[in-house]
Amino acid sequence: MILALAGGVGGARLANGLAGVRAPGTVTIAVNTGDDFEHMGLHITPDTDTVTYTLAGLNNAELGWGQKGESWAFMEAAKALGAPGWFALGDRDLATHVLRTERLRAGETLSSITADFAERLGIAQLIVPMSDDPVRSMIDTDEGELPFQDYFVRRRCEPAFRRIRFAGAAQARPSPGLLAALKQPALETILICPSNPVLSIAPILAVPSVAECLAARRVPCVAVSPFIGRTAVKGPAAKIMAELGLDATPAALADQYRGLIDGLVIDRADADIGDEAGLPLLVTDTLMRDEADQRRLAAETLAFAASLPR
Amino acid sequence: MILALAGGVGGARLANGLAGVRAPGTVTIAVNTGDDFEHMGLHITPDTDTVTYTLAGLNNAELGWGQKGESWAFMEAAKALGAPGWFALGDRDLATHVLRTERLRAGETLSSITADFAERLGIAQLIVPMSDDPVRSMIDTDEGELPFQDYFVRRRCEPAFRRIRFAGAAQARPSPGLLAALKQPALETILICPSNPVLSIAPILAVPSVAECLAARRVPCVAVSPFIGRTAVKGPAAKIMAELGLDATPAALADQYRGLIDGLVIDRADADIGDEAGLPLLVTDTLMRDEADQRRLAAETLAFAASLPR
Repeated sequence: MILALAGGVGGARLANGLAGVRAPGTVTIAVNTGDDFEHMGLHITPDTDTVTYTLAGLNNAELGWGQKGESWAFMEAAKALGAPGWFALGDRDLATHVLRTERLRAGETLSSITADFAERLGIAQLIVPMSDDPVRSMIDTDEGELPFQDYFVRRRCEPAFRRIRFAGAAQARPSPGLLAALKQPALETILICPSNPVLSIAPILAVPSVAECLAARRVPCVAVSPFIGRTAVKGPAAKIMAELGLDATPAALADQYRGLIDGLVIDRADADIGDEAGLPLLVTDTLMRDEADQRRLAAETLAFAASLPR
Repeated sequence: MILALAGGVGGARLANGLAGVRAPGTVTIAVNTGDDFEHMGLHITPDTDTVTYTLAGLNNAELGWGQKGESWAFMEAAKALGAPGWFALGDRDLATHVLRTERLRAGETLSSITADFAERLGIAQLIVPMSDDPVRSMIDTDEGELPFQDYFVRRRCEPAFRRIRFAGAAQARPSPGLLAALKQPALETILICPSNPVLSIAPILAVPSVAECLAARRVPCVAVSPFIGRTAVKGPAAKIMAELGLDATPAALADQYRGLIDGLVIDRADADIGDEAGLPLLVTDTLMRDEADQRRLAAETLAFAASLPR
């Protein structure tokens, strides 16, 4: 059994690689839900959907969110009726949000709905939200505190990032699937996917039992760096690290995950500064352009983790 | 001021004709909400939408419901996630349902939302639900009692119709807009549109104050027959009338509206049996193929009503 902690695109890609090299039912992908929010009365859970769509082969690779071959008739009609246009919901993507919202309102857990959707889309691995309890990432910026999606999408990460807090995290329990994976006797390895450490992985670690279980782990935990050549492959991670006075480097990442990881996978472009991390390293090509890249990086990372003592 | 009571397609067409021949703000169209239901967690109000889309020029004339140029990506994706497929929601139409549901959940009334949507879509007349309180048409059939949409869409009106009841009607108040129109000193005429008398008009009349106000009217009330040549132009009205032991004739319609109307507009095809209605008649072409037909029938009906004593 493998447990992977994942955010959006980068996490989804490595998770898809893991799914490609592992037997069905042997990978649990625990996904950040700090980005979740209500929009137009619908419960949107972006990272869970990105992981689900990617493993189902339905993801929109150009956009980095939503479904491929997406159409926008709903948004056009909604704007004519006064809906805000800053968060786009594709016609196909909308089905996920509408059906999830209906089931949540009927009392079903996000875990149960996520598992059902994954099964219906033919996904053989376990996708679990980090928690079924609401955790909401709130970004303190030079324009004041903004809910995550206001900062990330509406304001396009333009306000200077000061601090993030995870409202509700202190009371949140890990989802049953994440807890089962953490306590699973057959657990071999924990992976932290190449997701934004501050926005995507920190919310998962903010759920108290998760950090505790990780600190008390009996199996190796390895992080794959989201940085290549001292910057982020995608998204605002480098900008945010800079605004926090941090570098987009292996050493800064090792600091971020101090005590939680036993090794670090970094890109060849950062090989010269890898030793500053003070951790066992796998230096390889971490850019995942296609599914072959995803599977190769997943296999190399698993082999590296298996080589580490714990 | 004109008040029109309307159901779906036929009602929407005459309402559109009225809008075409009357000054802005002088027609109130009170729409049946007995067909409303919750589906996929969304509040659907089919007749209100048909009237709104028709007056906005957005209606799908082929289907008789939903928006023109509609696409179905949402439905396709929703069915893949396990959603029922028997009630189709187009991608554009869905915007209405999602935004209405959000606003209803936030405590806004159906009246207020309907008025706002109409204004945003450039509609100059007043479209009001018959009530902001829930009234649900329940159809007693030879297969037992079915909620309206189960009978009408899922079972395609196939079960034999025995009786209709309007759950909640006894406690329902007319919407503020309908009540204002009924009490309006400047009210000139009340029209009952060529909608199904049993499924579409009866629910409106089942709201206690509506029937009372209509019975106490000081202005002429005229019904336009939905029947042409002893059958219904569209929909299951003739089948239902037959199952109730009634004919699709002017006389049966006059019985249905006994005491509530002062005149009847019937098609030339029923001219030979018009006198059986025992009411003043306007015999004309009632089939509304296009907007010119709608305006002509609206104008003729208004002139006929104005000629009646009250």
